[in-house]
Amino acid sequence: MQGNLFITFEGPDGAGKTSVLKLIGERLQQKQLQVLLTREPGGIEIAEKIRSIILDPAHTMMHERTEALLYAAARAQHFYEKIMPALEQGKHVLCDRFIDSSLAYQGHARGIGVDEVLSINQFAIGQRLPDITIYFDIAPEKGIARIHANRSDEMNRLDVEGLAFHQKVYEGYQEAMKRYPNRFRVINADQPLEDVIEEVWGILNPILG
Amino acid sequence: MQGNLFITFEGPDGAGKTSVLKLIGERLQQKQLQVLLTREPGGIEIAEKIRSIILDPAHTMMHERTEALLYAAARAQHFYEKIMPALEQGKHVLCDRFIDSSLAYQGHARGIGVDEVLSINQFAIGQRLPDITIYFDIAPEKGIARIHANRSDEMNRLDVEGLAFHQKVYEGYQEAMKRYPNRFRVINADQPLEDVIEEVWGILNPILG
Repeated sequence: MQGNLFITFEGPDGAGKTSVLKLIGERLQQKQLQVLLTREPGGIEIAEKIRSIILDPAHTMMHERTEALLYAAARAQHFYEKIMPALEQGKHVLCDRFIDSSLAYQGHARGIGVDEVLSINQFAIGQRLPDITIYFDIAPEKGIARIHANRSDEMNRLDVEGLAFHQKVYEGYQEAMKRYPNRFRVINADQPLEDVIEEVWGILNPILG
Repeated sequence: MQGNLFITFEGPDGAGKTSVLKLIGERLQQKQLQVLLTREPGGIEIAEKIRSIILDPAHTMMHERTEALLYAAARAQHFYEKIMPALEQGKHVLCDRFIDSSLAYQGHARGIGVDEVLSINQFAIGQRLPDITIYFDIAPEKGIARIHANRSDEMNRLDVEGLAFHQKVYEGYQEAMKRYPNRFRVINADQPLEDVIEEVWGILNPILG
Protein backbone atom coordinates (compact mmCIF):
# COMPACT_ATOMS: atom_id res chain seq x y z
CA MET A 1 0.00 0.00 0.00
CA GLN A 2 1.55 3.28 -1.07
CA GLY A 3 -1.42 5.55 -1.63
CA ASN A 4 -3.23 5.81 -4.91
CA LEU A 5 -1.45 4.67 -8.02
CA PHE A 6 -1.19 5.61 -11.68
CA ILE A 7 -1.29 2.37 -13.67
CA THR A 8 -1.04 1.97 -17.42
CA PHE A 9 -1.92 -0.96 -19.67
CA GLU A 10 0.36 -1.44 -22.65
CA GLY A 11 0.93 -3.88 -25.47
CA PRO A 12 0.51 -4.39 -29.18
CA ASP A 13 -2.84 -4.08 -30.91
CA GLY A 14 -5.13 -7.02 -30.33
CA ALA A 15 -3.61 -7.98 -26.97
CA GLY A 16 -6.92 -7.55 -25.15
CA LYS A 17 -5.89 -4.59 -22.96
CA THR A 18 -9.14 -2.68 -23.36
CA SER A 19 -11.45 -5.56 -22.41
CA VAL A 20 -9.31 -6.51 -19.44
CA LEU A 21 -9.05 -2.94 -18.18
CA LYS A 22 -12.83 -2.60 -18.20
CA LEU A 23 -13.37 -5.84 -16.26
CA ILE A 24 -10.59 -5.12 -13.76
CA GLY A 25 -12.10 -1.68 -13.25
CA GLU A 26 -15.46 -3.25 -12.42
CA ARG A 27 -13.85 -5.53 -9.83
CA LEU A 28 -12.08 -2.60 -8.21
CA GLN A 29 -15.29 -0.60 -8.08
CA GLN A 30 -17.05 -3.59 -6.46
CA LYS A 31 -14.38 -3.33 -3.77
CA GLN A 32 -15.50 0.29 -3.23
CA LEU A 33 -12.16 1.62 -4.46
CA GLN A 34 -12.10 5.03 -6.08
CA VAL A 35 -10.92 4.34 -9.60
CA LEU A 36 -10.71 6.30 -12.83
CA LEU A 37 -10.61 4.20 -16.00
CA THR A 38 -9.46 6.15 -19.01
CA ARG A 39 -7.73 6.08 -22.35
CA GLU A 40 -6.48 8.90 -24.51
CA PRO A 41 -8.06 11.15 -25.69
CA GLY A 42 -10.59 10.27 -22.98
CA GLY A 43 -13.45 12.59 -23.88
CA ILE A 44 -11.27 15.66 -23.35
CA GLU A 45 -12.35 18.02 -26.10
CA ILE A 46 -8.94 19.45 -26.96
CA ALA A 47 -7.34 15.99 -26.93
CA GLU A 48 -10.16 14.59 -29.09
CA LYS A 49 -9.63 17.31 -31.66
CA ILE A 50 -5.90 16.64 -31.74
CA ARG A 51 -6.52 12.92 -32.12
CA SER A 52 -8.90 13.49 -35.00
CA ILE A 53 -6.11 15.30 -36.88
CA ILE A 54 -3.78 12.33 -36.30
CA LEU A 55 -6.29 9.73 -37.46
CA ASP A 56 -7.74 11.55 -40.49
CA PRO A 57 -7.07 9.20 -43.43
CA ALA A 58 -6.68 12.27 -45.70
CA HIS A 59 -3.51 13.32 -43.88
CA THR A 60 -1.10 11.18 -45.86
CA MET A 61 1.44 14.03 -45.82
CA MET A 62 1.76 13.96 -42.05
CA HIS A 63 5.42 13.80 -41.04
CA GLU A 64 6.28 11.25 -38.36
CA ARG A 65 7.64 14.00 -36.11
CA THR A 66 4.39 15.94 -36.42
CA GLU A 67 2.52 12.78 -35.49
CA ALA A 68 4.74 12.16 -32.44
CA LEU A 69 4.29 15.76 -31.26
CA LEU A 70 0.52 15.55 -31.70
CA TYR A 71 0.34 12.35 -29.66
CA ALA A 72 2.40 14.08 -26.96
CA ALA A 73 0.12 17.14 -27.09
CA ALA A 74 -3.06 15.06 -26.75
CA ARG A 75 -1.38 13.14 -23.93
CA ALA A 76 -0.49 16.34 -22.07
CA GLN A 77 -4.04 17.67 -22.23
CA HIS A 78 -5.63 14.38 -21.17
CA PHE A 79 -3.05 14.08 -18.40
CA TYR A 80 -3.51 17.55 -16.88
CA GLU A 81 -7.24 17.75 -17.40
CA LYS A 82 -8.23 14.23 -16.36
CA ILE A 83 -5.47 12.03 -14.87
CA MET A 84 -3.80 14.54 -12.54
CA PRO A 85 -7.05 15.80 -10.98
CA ALA A 86 -8.11 12.19 -10.31
CA LEU A 87 -4.75 11.38 -8.69
CA GLU A 88 -5.01 14.53 -6.59
CA GLN A 89 -8.46 13.40 -5.45
CA GLY A 90 -6.89 10.16 -4.19
CA LYS A 91 -8.20 7.92 -6.99
CA HIS A 92 -6.34 5.08 -8.60
CA VAL A 93 -6.00 5.73 -12.32
CA LEU A 94 -5.97 2.91 -14.88
CA CYS A 95 -5.07 4.21 -18.32
CA ASP A 96 -5.27 2.18 -21.54
CA ARG A 97 -2.02 3.06 -23.37
CA PHE A 98 0.25 5.92 -22.40
CA ILE A 99 3.85 7.01 -22.89
CA ASP A 100 5.21 3.53 -23.73
CA SER A 101 2.92 3.29 -26.75
CA SER A 102 4.69 6.33 -28.17
CA LEU A 103 8.12 4.87 -27.41
CA ALA A 104 7.16 1.65 -29.21
CA TYR A 105 5.14 3.08 -32.11
CA GLN A 106 6.76 6.42 -32.88
CA GLY A 107 10.16 5.94 -31.27
CA HIS A 108 11.02 2.45 -32.46
CA ALA A 109 8.55 1.35 -35.17
CA ARG A 110 8.51 4.67 -37.05
CA GLY A 111 12.25 4.96 -36.54
CA ILE A 112 12.39 8.39 -34.87
CA GLY A 113 14.36 7.04 -31.94
CA VAL A 114 13.22 6.03 -28.47
CA ASP A 115 15.33 8.68 -26.70
CA GLU A 116 13.95 11.48 -28.83
CA VAL A 117 10.33 10.42 -28.41
CA LEU A 118 10.90 9.94 -24.70
CA SER A 119 12.14 13.53 -24.41
CA ILE A 120 8.99 15.10 -25.89
CA ASN A 121 6.79 12.83 -23.79
CA GLN A 122 8.64 13.71 -20.61
CA PHE A 123 8.04 17.33 -21.57
CA ALA A 124 4.34 16.52 -22.04
CA ILE A 125 3.81 14.95 -18.63
CA GLY A 126 6.40 16.87 -16.64
CA GLN A 127 8.37 13.68 -15.88
CA ARG A 128 5.38 12.08 -14.08
CA LEU A 129 5.70 8.49 -15.30
CA PRO A 130 3.19 5.76 -14.38
CA ASP A 131 3.82 3.89 -11.14
CA ILE A 132 3.08 0.50 -12.69
CA THR A 133 2.72 -0.60 -16.29
CA ILE A 134 1.04 -3.90 -17.11
CA TYR A 135 2.46 -5.19 -20.38
CA PHE A 136 0.24 -7.56 -22.39
CA ASP A 137 2.66 -9.91 -24.06
CA ILE A 138 1.54 -11.52 -27.31
CA ALA A 139 3.28 -12.30 -30.58
CA PRO A 140 2.54 -9.59 -33.20
CA GLU A 141 1.03 -12.02 -35.72
CA LYS A 142 -1.43 -13.30 -33.10
CA GLY A 143 -2.36 -9.75 -32.13
CA ILE A 144 -3.06 -8.84 -35.73
CA ALA A 145 -5.16 -11.95 -36.25
CA ARG A 146 -7.31 -10.91 -33.29
CA ILE A 147 -7.75 -7.38 -34.65
CA HIS A 148 -8.98 -8.64 -37.99
CA ALA A 149 -11.32 -11.09 -36.30
CA ASN A 150 -12.86 -8.49 -33.97
CA ARG A 151 -12.99 -5.13 -35.66
CA SER A 152 -15.87 -4.20 -37.87
CA ASP A 153 -15.49 -0.43 -37.60
CA GLU A 154 -13.97 1.66 -40.33
CA MET A 155 -10.21 1.30 -40.64
CA ASN A 156 -8.26 4.38 -39.63
CA ARG A 157 -4.91 5.62 -40.93
CA LEU A 158 -2.98 3.48 -38.44
CA ASP A 159 -4.72 0.15 -39.03
CA VAL A 160 -3.35 -0.22 -42.52
CA GLU A 161 0.17 -1.02 -41.33
CA GLY A 162 1.48 -4.47 -42.09
CA LEU A 163 3.06 -7.21 -40.01
CA ALA A 164 6.57 -5.74 -40.32
CA PHE A 165 5.36 -2.60 -38.56
CA HIS A 166 3.70 -4.56 -35.79
CA GLN A 167 6.88 -6.60 -35.35
CA LYS A 168 8.76 -3.36 -34.81
CA VAL A 169 6.17 -2.21 -32.29
CA TYR A 170 6.83 -5.44 -30.40
CA GLU A 171 10.57 -4.76 -30.42
CA GLY A 172 9.93 -1.19 -29.28
CA TYR A 173 8.07 -2.43 -26.23
CA GLN A 174 10.96 -4.77 -25.41
CA GLU A 175 13.24 -1.74 -25.49
CA ALA A 176 10.91 0.26 -23.24
CA MET A 177 10.83 -2.63 -20.76
CA LYS A 178 14.62 -2.76 -20.64
CA ARG A 179 14.65 0.93 -19.76
CA TYR A 180 12.03 0.64 -17.02
CA PRO A 181 12.40 -2.85 -15.50
CA ASN A 182 10.93 -1.74 -12.16
CA ARG A 183 7.83 -0.16 -13.60
CA PHE A 184 6.80 -2.99 -15.97
CA ARG A 185 4.86 -6.15 -15.06
CA VAL A 186 4.67 -8.57 -17.99
CA ILE A 187 1.60 -10.79 -18.29
CA ASN A 188 0.88 -13.51 -20.83
CA ALA A 189 -1.86 -12.18 -23.12
CA ASP A 190 -1.87 -15.29 -25.29
CA GLN A 191 -4.42 -17.18 -23.21
CA PRO A 192 -8.19 -17.02 -22.74
CA LEU A 193 -9.51 -13.65 -21.55
CA GLU A 194 -10.58 -14.97 -18.14
CA ASP A 195 -7.05 -16.23 -17.50
CA VAL A 196 -5.55 -12.91 -18.55
CA ILE A 197 -7.90 -11.13 -16.16
CA GLU A 198 -6.88 -13.40 -13.28
CA GLU A 199 -3.21 -12.78 -13.99
CA VAL A 200 -3.69 -9.01 -13.99
CA TRP A 201 -5.90 -9.23 -10.92
CA GLY A 202 -3.21 -11.22 -9.16
CA ILE A 203 -0.83 -8.32 -9.67
CA LEU A 204 -3.15 -5.41 -8.93
CA ASN A 205 -5.40 -6.76 -6.20
CA PRO A 206 -2.63 -7.03 -3.56
CA ILE A 207 -1.28 -3.59 -4.43
CA LEU A 208 -4.55 -1.70 -4.64
CA GLY A 209 -6.23 -3.79 -1.91
CA MET B 1 27.84 33.87 -50.32
CA GLN B 2 27.27 30.46 -48.83
CA GLY B 3 24.50 29.01 -50.93
CA ASN B 4 20.85 29.47 -50.12
CA LEU B 5 19.89 30.49 -46.63
CA PHE B 6 17.12 29.88 -44.13
CA ILE B 7 16.31 33.25 -42.55
CA THR B 8 13.75 33.96 -39.85
CA PHE B 9 12.17 37.23 -38.71
CA GLU B 10 11.49 37.48 -34.99
CA GLY B 11 10.32 40.02 -32.46
CA PRO B 12 7.39 40.97 -30.26
CA ASP B 13 3.94 41.60 -31.65
CA GLY B 14 3.59 44.91 -33.45
CA ALA B 15 7.26 45.17 -34.40
CA GLY B 16 6.46 45.32 -38.11
CA LYS B 17 8.06 42.01 -39.12
CA THR B 18 5.30 40.94 -41.47
CA SER B 19 5.21 44.16 -43.51
CA VAL B 20 8.99 44.29 -43.77
CA LEU B 21 9.30 40.64 -44.78
CA LYS B 22 6.83 41.18 -47.62
CA LEU B 23 8.66 44.24 -48.97
CA ILE B 24 12.11 42.66 -48.60
CA GLY B 25 10.77 39.62 -50.42
CA GLU B 26 9.64 41.82 -53.31
CA ARG B 27 13.09 43.37 -53.60
CA LEU B 28 14.75 39.97 -53.64
CA GLN B 29 12.38 38.77 -56.34
CA GLN B 30 13.16 41.88 -58.40
CA LYS B 31 16.79 40.76 -58.23
CA GLN B 32 15.66 37.46 -59.79
CA LEU B 33 16.53 35.53 -56.64
CA GLN B 34 14.60 32.39 -55.88
CA VAL B 35 12.86 33.13 -52.62
CA LEU B 36 10.15 31.51 -50.54
CA LEU B 37 8.31 33.86 -48.16
CA THR B 38 6.35 32.01 -45.53
CA ARG B 39 4.96 32.02 -42.02
CA GLU B 40 3.49 29.22 -39.97
CA PRO B 41 1.11 27.54 -40.64
CA GLY B 42 1.73 28.68 -44.20
CA GLY B 43 -1.24 27.19 -46.01
CA ILE B 44 -0.18 23.67 -45.04
CA GLU B 45 -3.46 21.92 -44.29
CA ILE B 46 -2.29 19.85 -41.32
CA ALA B 47 -0.48 22.82 -39.77
CA GLU B 48 -3.53 25.05 -40.33
CA LYS B 49 -5.74 22.55 -38.53
CA ILE B 50 -3.31 22.36 -35.62
CA ARG B 51 -3.13 26.14 -35.43
CA SER B 52 -6.90 26.44 -35.38
CA ILE B 53 -6.98 24.25 -32.26
CA ILE B 54 -4.42 26.53 -30.58
CA LEU B 55 -6.26 29.73 -31.41
CA ASP B 56 -9.84 28.62 -30.69
CA PRO B 57 -11.09 31.06 -28.01
CA ALA B 58 -13.22 28.23 -26.56
CA HIS B 59 -10.11 26.29 -25.50
CA THR B 60 -9.60 28.03 -22.18
CA MET B 61 -8.64 24.69 -20.61
CA MET B 62 -5.60 24.28 -22.84
CA HIS B 63 -2.52 23.50 -20.76
CA GLU B 64 0.61 25.48 -21.60
CA ARG B 65 2.49 22.27 -22.37
CA THR B 66 -0.21 21.18 -24.79
CA GLU B 67 0.04 24.56 -26.47
CA ALA B 68 3.84 24.34 -26.75
CA LEU B 69 3.61 20.83 -28.25
CA LEU B 70 0.97 21.95 -30.75
CA TYR B 71 3.13 24.86 -31.88
CA ALA B 72 6.03 22.44 -32.29
CA ALA B 73 3.79 20.02 -34.25
CA ALA B 74 2.54 22.72 -36.61
CA ARG B 75 6.15 23.91 -37.00
CA ALA B 76 7.34 20.41 -37.90
CA GLN B 77 4.70 19.94 -40.59
CA HIS B 78 5.25 23.39 -42.14
CA PHE B 79 9.01 22.81 -42.00
CA TYR B 80 9.06 19.40 -43.70
CA GLU B 81 6.29 20.11 -46.18
CA LYS B 82 7.25 23.64 -47.23
CA ILE B 83 10.59 24.98 -45.91
CA MET B 84 12.79 21.92 -46.46
CA PRO B 85 11.64 21.29 -50.04
CA ALA B 86 12.32 24.97 -50.90
CA LEU B 87 15.80 24.82 -49.36
CA GLU B 88 16.49 21.61 -51.27
CA GLN B 89 15.45 23.38 -54.49
CA GLY B 90 18.10 26.05 -53.81
CA LYS B 91 15.71 28.77 -52.70
CA HIS B 92 16.32 31.27 -49.93
CA VAL B 93 13.60 30.94 -47.30
CA LEU B 94 12.34 33.93 -45.30
CA CYS B 95 10.05 32.82 -42.50
CA ASP B 96 7.99 35.16 -40.32
CA ARG B 97 8.45 33.74 -36.77
CA PHE B 98 9.95 30.36 -36.04
CA ILE B 99 11.58 28.53 -33.13
CA ASP B 100 12.60 31.66 -31.20
CA SER B 101 8.97 32.73 -30.90
CA SER B 102 8.33 29.53 -28.98
CA LEU B 103 11.37 30.07 -26.76
CA ALA B 104 10.18 33.60 -25.93
CA TYR B 105 6.42 32.99 -25.69
CA GLN B 106 6.08 29.46 -24.34
CA GLY B 107 9.51 28.99 -22.81
CA HIS B 108 9.97 32.27 -20.99
CA ALA B 109 6.66 34.19 -20.94
CA ARG B 110 4.47 31.18 -20.10
CA GLY B 111 7.13 29.99 -17.68
CA ILE B 112 7.67 26.47 -19.04
CA GLY B 113 11.42 27.02 -19.36
CA VAL B 114 13.51 27.89 -22.38
CA ASP B 115 15.55 24.67 -22.26
CA GLU B 116 12.45 22.49 -22.19
CA VAL B 117 10.74 24.30 -25.05
CA LEU B 118 13.97 24.25 -27.01
CA SER B 119 14.15 20.46 -26.67
CA ILE B 120 10.72 19.82 -28.21
CA ASN B 121 11.43 22.30 -30.99
CA GLN B 122 14.75 20.70 -31.79
CA PHE B 123 12.84 17.44 -31.99
CA ALA B 124 10.36 19.12 -34.35
CA ILE B 125 12.92 20.40 -36.83
CA GLY B 126 15.58 17.73 -36.41
CA GLN B 127 18.11 20.30 -35.09
CA ARG B 128 17.98 22.36 -38.34
CA LEU B 129 18.08 25.89 -36.92
CA PRO B 130 17.81 29.01 -39.10
CA ASP B 131 21.04 30.35 -40.57
CA ILE B 132 20.20 33.97 -39.74
CA THR B 133 17.53 35.48 -37.51
CA ILE B 134 16.62 39.15 -37.87
CA TYR B 135 15.36 40.40 -34.52
CA PHE B 136 13.01 43.41 -34.59
CA ASP B 137 13.83 45.30 -31.43
CA ILE B 138 11.05 47.44 -29.98
CA ALA B 139 9.85 48.13 -26.43
CA PRO B 140 6.83 45.95 -25.55
CA GLU B 141 4.55 48.90 -24.77
CA LYS B 142 5.26 50.44 -28.18
CA GLY B 143 4.61 47.12 -29.90
CA ILE B 144 1.27 46.74 -28.15
CA ALA B 145 0.25 50.30 -29.03
CA ARG B 146 0.88 49.49 -32.69
CA ILE B 147 -1.19 46.31 -32.52
CA HIS B 148 -4.18 48.13 -31.09
CA ALA B 149 -3.83 50.88 -33.69
CA ASN B 150 -3.64 48.51 -36.64
CA ARG B 151 -5.76 45.44 -35.98
CA SER B 152 -9.42 45.40 -36.78
CA ASP B 153 -9.83 41.65 -37.08
CA GLU B 154 -11.38 39.55 -34.37
CA MET B 155 -9.20 39.09 -31.33
CA ASN B 156 -7.91 35.55 -30.88
CA ARG B 157 -7.07 33.73 -27.66
CA LEU B 158 -3.51 35.10 -27.61
CA ASP B 159 -4.28 38.79 -28.17
CA VAL B 160 -5.94 39.17 -24.81
CA GLU B 161 -2.65 39.00 -22.89
CA GLY B 162 -1.62 42.14 -21.04
CA LEU B 163 1.54 44.21 -20.94
CA ALA B 164 3.18 42.03 -18.27
CA PHE B 165 3.03 39.07 -20.67
CA HIS B 166 4.50 41.07 -23.53
CA GLN B 167 7.27 42.28 -21.22
CA LYS B 168 8.12 38.64 -20.52
CA VAL B 169 8.12 37.87 -24.23
CA TYR B 170 10.67 40.65 -24.64
CA GLU B 171 12.85 39.14 -21.91
CA GLY B 172 12.48 35.72 -23.52
CA TYR B 173 13.88 37.04 -26.78
CA GLN B 174 16.84 38.55 -24.92
CA GLU B 175 17.52 35.09 -23.49
CA ALA B 176 17.28 33.47 -26.93
CA MET B 177 19.73 36.03 -28.30
CA LYS B 178 22.23 35.28 -25.55
CA ARG B 179 22.05 31.61 -26.50
CA TYR B 180 22.54 32.20 -30.22
CA PRO B 181 24.69 35.34 -30.59
CA ASN B 182 26.02 34.28 -34.01
CA ARG B 183 22.64 33.62 -35.53
CA PHE B 184 20.87 36.82 -34.43
CA ARG B 185 21.06 40.24 -36.11
CA VAL B 186 19.28 42.92 -34.08
CA ILE B 187 17.66 45.81 -35.92
CA ASN B 188 15.92 48.87 -34.50
CA ALA B 189 12.19 48.44 -35.18
CA ASP B 190 11.27 51.68 -33.43
CA GLN B 191 11.67 53.88 -36.49
CA PRO B 192 9.62 54.54 -39.66
CA LEU B 193 8.91 51.46 -41.78
CA GLU B 194 11.09 52.63 -44.69
CA ASP B 195 14.06 52.97 -42.32
CA VAL B 196 13.47 49.50 -40.86
CA ILE B 197 13.37 48.09 -44.38
CA GLU B 198 16.68 49.75 -45.27
CA GLU B 199 18.30 48.39 -42.13
CA VAL B 200 17.14 44.85 -42.90
CA TRP B 201 18.09 45.26 -46.55
CA GLY B 202 21.56 46.40 -45.48
CA ILE B 203 22.01 43.09 -43.69
CA LEU B 204 20.44 40.72 -46.22
CA ASN B 205 21.39 42.27 -49.56
CA PRO B 206 25.15 41.62 -49.21
CA ILE B 207 24.58 38.08 -47.96
CA LEU B 208 21.95 37.02 -50.47
CA GLY B 209 23.60 38.98 -53.32
